[in-house]
Amino acid sequence: MLLSHGTNIRWLTGFGGSLGWVVIGPDRFALITDGRYGERAAADLAESRLDAELIVRTSRPELAEAVTATASGPASVLAEAEHLSHAAWGDLAEQFPIEPAGGVVESLRRVKDAGELARMTLAADIADRTLVEVAPMLDHRPTEADVRTELEYRMRRNGADGPSYDTIVASGPQNAARPHHNTGDRTIGEGDTVIIDVGALVDGYHSDMTRTFVVGAADARQNEIYDVVRDAQAAGLSAVRSGVAAADVDAACRAVFRHAGLEDWFIHGTGHGVGLDIHEDPFSSPVSTAELLVGDVVTVEPGLYRDGFGGVRIEDLVAVTATGCELLTHLSKDAPCLPSLPTT
Amino acid sequence: MLLSHGTNIRWLTGFGGSLGWVVIGPDRFALITDGRYGERAAADLAESRLDAELIVRTSRPELAEAVTATASGPASVLAEAEHLSHAAWGDLAEQFPIEPAGGVVESLRRVKDAGELARMTLAADIADRTLVEVAPMLDHRPTEADVRTELEYRMRRNGADGPSYDTIVASGPQNAARPHHNTGDRTIGEGDTVIIDVGALVDGYHSDMTRTFVVGAADARQNEIYDVVRDAQAAGLSAVRSGVAAADVDAACRAVFRHAGLEDWFIHGTGHGVGLDIHEDPFSSPVSTAELLVGDVVTVEPGLYRDGFGGVRIEDLVAVTATGCELLTHLSKDAPCLPSLPTT
Repeated sequence: MLLSHGTNIRWLTGFGGSLGWVVIGPDRFALITDGRYGERAAADLAESRLDAELIVRTSRPELAEAVTATASGPASVLAEAEHLSHAAWGDLAEQFPIEPAGGVVESLRRVKDAGELARMTLAADIADRTLVEVAPMLDHRPTEADVRTELEYRMRRNGADGPSYDTIVASGPQNAARPHHNTGDRTIGEGDTVIIDVGALVDGYHSDMTRTFVVGAADARQNEIYDVVRDAQAAGLSAVRSGVAAADVDAACRAVFRHAGLEDWFIHGTGHGVGLDIHEDPFSSPVSTAELLVGDVVTVEPGLYRDGFGGVRIEDLVAVTATGCELLTHLSKDAPCLPSLPTT
Repeated sequence: MLLSHGTNIRWLTGFGGSLGWVVIGPDRFALITDGRYGERAAADLAESRLDAELIVRTSRPELAEAVTATASGPASVLAEAEHLSHAAWGDLAEQFPIEPAGGVVESLRRVKDAGELARMTLAADIADRTLVEVAPMLDHRPTEADVRTELEYRMRRNGADGPSYDTIVASGPQNAARPHHNTGDRTIGEGDTVIIDVGALVDGYHSDMTRTFVVGAADARQNEIYDVVRDAQAAGLSAVRSGVAAADVDAACRAVFRHAGLEDWFIHGTGHGVGLDIHEDPFSSPVSTAELLVGDVVTVEPGLYRDGFGGVRIEDLVAVTATGCELLTHLSKDAPCLPSLPTT
């Protein structure tokens, strides 16, 4: 098997550089990388549980030769068809018989062990604490970008290796109506709904959460929409436990929206797995086929969006258990006001 | 032609979301994306010079259907074999005849126009000013991560949309010896070589530069190595002009290192193109086949690395002209001390 996907390589070897290959054979377990990463790969491997051989080559052509030489053998080679470009696949196929590996490493790393859960718990906690620190600035007419910049800066000061993804700060009647709004220069003011979707990165592991605020006092319509999303999110959380179809978690949220006559305001799926990748299996949407397992870490993040109104999304990160789930996100979410530390 | 690569789509349409497809046919120019990005895509397209049709689908299967329906026609479809996964390529190949497009959009966007150069000039200027602000903290025993965090925070406060890439702060006898060191918790102290590789992002366009410092007074060996790198970098810059082989720029740096008996301390190529991607054509290494063109924006970044010594790298971002190059990076680089604004 020849692996090229960064997070799969990291999970297997601890190597966190951006260019590497791993070869796994009957009598071979090798990490192959280029000269820029040689020292770092040696250090990362030294901290790993597994004992991989390290092969370092200076130039790209020499690197390609080392991959070919190490992976070649009598049998065919399994490679990552989902992650390798069609062109790179074609280059390898000229060297040896090659077949899709399927998501074999993704399957192995989907369920998190205690060490992984500890990192993700810390990441979620840093995001919680940082949002509590930063949210009060919403009252002082910052731009979306100002809030984003403070969140990402303070998450690092609070111990994160960085943001888990590009922090989303989406405010007001138009921007908050876009689930993946590009945080921009809009000034946040009185009466705005403000969606803040923020996570921290700890040792390669991500957290992910969303809270929605109303600056000043929420009006009746804002409270009404907020309450529907809060109820839908609670219904989603209640549906989570091992053995449940991921599609049923989505259906639980969607049923609350349908009951409120707002189903067409919900324009994305309910959640996704989180780990070394910010989006990984299992995904939760109407077309999901996955079943939840003990140790899955997933988001539950229903939302309602409408141009002219803005939007509301509430997202928690949870670890699936045999009887339900354990919340990794602990910020309050009862009402669209400034958050406080754990009330859940 | 069916395009899937984010920066190619951004260059063609202005759309900056992470999931989109562009179809270009005899009578069709369409951007296809999913419901999460619908509003944003409409806004991005409205600001674009080109008049693309926008197709939004809510679910992934519907999105795939729209791509197939829009791209299908009598002739075969050109797609991006370098960027599309082998699995995605296979899915499309079941729908219609498909062939590699080659890097046709990359070729079109390699040479920068005045608007692109203006963004990159601003990005380089923000990185310059920010490094001048932050470098004095090197004297106060920060960790590498502290310096990285301040640089990324202040670049944003100075007008950047974000860092251009993960800022590298590599210090001391081991870490600075790794060209792609993962900025960490090491405390920077007296006598360390410190390599800072930092760039800013402005409207999708990247800057890229590196300066090397010695904390306190540099010793004789540090000054000697620094001077060799400075001379190699000057030789590289002198070699840059349109019509020159990119490999010759690399050779110019390498000759200085060889003359100093230090060629084996140089363990990467001399540079790369920069634009919407941080690494793009033309690359400059011994095996490069590219020829420089007026309007290429490239780095010139030789370095020397040795475990136990640390490292020195000096990198400028330059725009290629008919007679040489225009520096976008203006920080001083004469000696390994704290920088002041422009001396070049």
